[in-house]
Amino acid sequence: MKKFINSEDTFLKESLQGFAAAHQDIVTCFYDPNFITRSKATKVGKVAVISGGGSGHEPMHGGFVGYGMLDAACPGFVFSSPSPDQMIAASEKVDNGAGVLFIVKNYSGDIMNFQMSSEMMTGASETVLTNDDVAVEDSSFTTGRRGVAATVIVEKIVGSLAESGGSLKECKILGDKVNKNSGSMGVAFSSCTVPAARKPTFELGADEMEFGVGIHGEPGRRRDKVKSALDITNELLEAIIEDLKPENNDEILLFVNGMGGTPLTELYIIYDNAKKILDNKKVKIVRSLVGNYCTSLEMQGASITLTKLDQEITNHWDSAVHTAAMRWGM
Amino acid sequence: MKKFINSEDTFLKESLQGFAAAHQDIVTCFYDPNFITRSKATKVGKVAVISGGGSGHEPMHGGFVGYGMLDAACPGFVFSSPSPDQMIAASEKVDNGAGVLFIVKNYSGDIMNFQMSSEMMTGASETVLTNDDVAVEDSSFTTGRRGVAATVIVEKIVGSLAESGGSLKECKILGDKVNKNSGSMGVAFSSCTVPAARKPTFELGADEMEFGVGIHGEPGRRRDKVKSALDITNELLEAIIEDLKPENNDEILLFVNGMGGTPLTELYIIYDNAKKILDNKKVKIVRSLVGNYCTSLEMQGASITLTKLDQEITNHWDSAVHTAAMRWGM
Repeated sequence: MKKFINSEDTFLKESLQGFAAAHQDIVTCFYDPNFITRSKATKVGKVAVISGGGSGHEPMHGGFVGYGMLDAACPGFVFSSPSPDQMIAASEKVDNGAGVLFIVKNYSGDIMNFQMSSEMMTGASETVLTNDDVAVEDSSFTTGRRGVAATVIVEKIVGSLAESGGSLKECKILGDKVNKNSGSMGVAFSSCTVPAARKPTFELGADEMEFGVGIHGEPGRRRDKVKSALDITNELLEAIIEDLKPENNDEILLFVNGMGGTPLTELYIIYDNAKKILDNKKVKIVRSLVGNYCTSLEMQGASITLTKLDQEITNHWDSAVHTAAMRWGM
Repeated sequence: MKKFINSEDTFLKESLQGFAAAHQDIVTCFYDPNFITRSKATKVGKVAVISGGGSGHEPMHGGFVGYGMLDAACPGFVFSSPSPDQMIAASEKVDNGAGVLFIVKNYSGDIMNFQMSSEMMTGASETVLTNDDVAVEDSSFTTGRRGVAATVIVEKIVGSLAESGGSLKECKILGDKVNKNSGSMGVAFSSCTVPAARKPTFELGADEMEFGVGIHGEPGRRRDKVKSALDITNELLEAIIEDLKPENNDEILLFVNGMGGTPLTELYIIYDNAKKILDNKKVKIVRSLVGNYCTSLEMQGASITLTKLDQEITNHWDSAVHTAAMRWGM
């Protein structure tokens, strides 16, 4: 295992410390229990948007804490759910009187712990569950579909609505809509190595890929020989389109996401190939995102997410955001 | 070789097409010869800042084309110098009457081709040569020190001065100053694979690292066993500090750069460890950058760059920038 690491025990804390120090104008980290908040106070009466989940998917979620997106993030240990005391401490810190919206990826551990937090909290809360991964129904840690890269889109859109004064109920409704409007699927060329495990999560042959892989290395639809970028892109899009059923001239956001170990050049090749395929199907790409946003440690791989847009979603996508990993308009 | 690729011949073009389509509000790509310009026209009388070099270091340089940074970038094939016709075509497109400043990393091929372009051009031009890599004197493709990640800093600072009306001469002087104020050094845990070569550039044992590696996989100071993040960080900083000689209370920008295959979590651990070491030495970190900016395809590794700041450099660092890979203030 080759990593920039001092010990498995200090891995998360040192990383959070570095993150907090490098972006002290945007975020503040608290420890024991671990959570990340904005460094600047928000308006009284603003809905607090909180996400969280296992670490190892950076910049998700801590990199999305800041103006126009999240109010707080709760990082668990690598690929482990955060505990209820993290969510409760974060909620108490950022709840401004208008309640808390939790954005939770569909993993059994995450759901259980976020639910427990909701029940133990005194303030109002709602939860948006993301389950955009069209690859498989049920998986190693999930009943139903997994929540993957569309979570980034949901956090941006809901964060914008909350920033502009949306109520808890309105944020919940919009979050559910964006999740329902989104489909994702990914492929891995390599495994990743969880620091505490010290060995790869799974093994892949020198010419193999995991098609439909999960963001913790969960099995996808099948193990296959590596194919051309165009064939891979085509098959990922087919699966997403079969699920999302965009119609002629539907406007979409095309999000090509790197899993952590894939160079930008290759993500742009996927984007190029996806654009050709979508142009052909008369699906209109009107917004784009390309980069490493929802990762799996150092995994080589990529995923595609399509989100169907309407005027409301597009406006919230375009609005100003100021986080460590996503920043525009200010 | 596992890559998202259709063929070695179309690798660069498809990637550029995807890049141009995903960021059409910021950049326009031209082909045969290949170069990238801003999609919006600039003010008459503004110095044009152009960089370029082999592909494979994305987002450098194309990702830095846009308001407040570069006017154009000339991508060569992977790890190959761009040809003079690319620089000349780009210069003709973006020269606004105030001349062209070339920012060139110190590699023999790049220098030769940029020099040839300067001589063949009708307009005025100056060149800023970056050679911030303190690891070794002379290398596989270089006489003198290699130009690496500080090039990103030089492009941001000079781009800002040019945007605010600086003359060609002033841009050249400031660029040289930022380069002189910067030192970098990197380490690799894995090689990278050039698509056309189809095999890793070099081989590393399962417990080995290349200490002082170049961004094309050139040898560094030595091959060594992988050490702790703190030991690696300490040794990288020692080498940079020995060269830069920051004094007590000097203000610096700390830039932790990923080589392409290293997760953000680990870059933040390096940042945390570097901060402890620099705090101890009373070197004041007042600006920070963490992420994959000057990469080597999918190489696992990281580099540290320190840039000594003064008020002029800091102001230009903080000014608004709007590129695909670096964006703030607008």
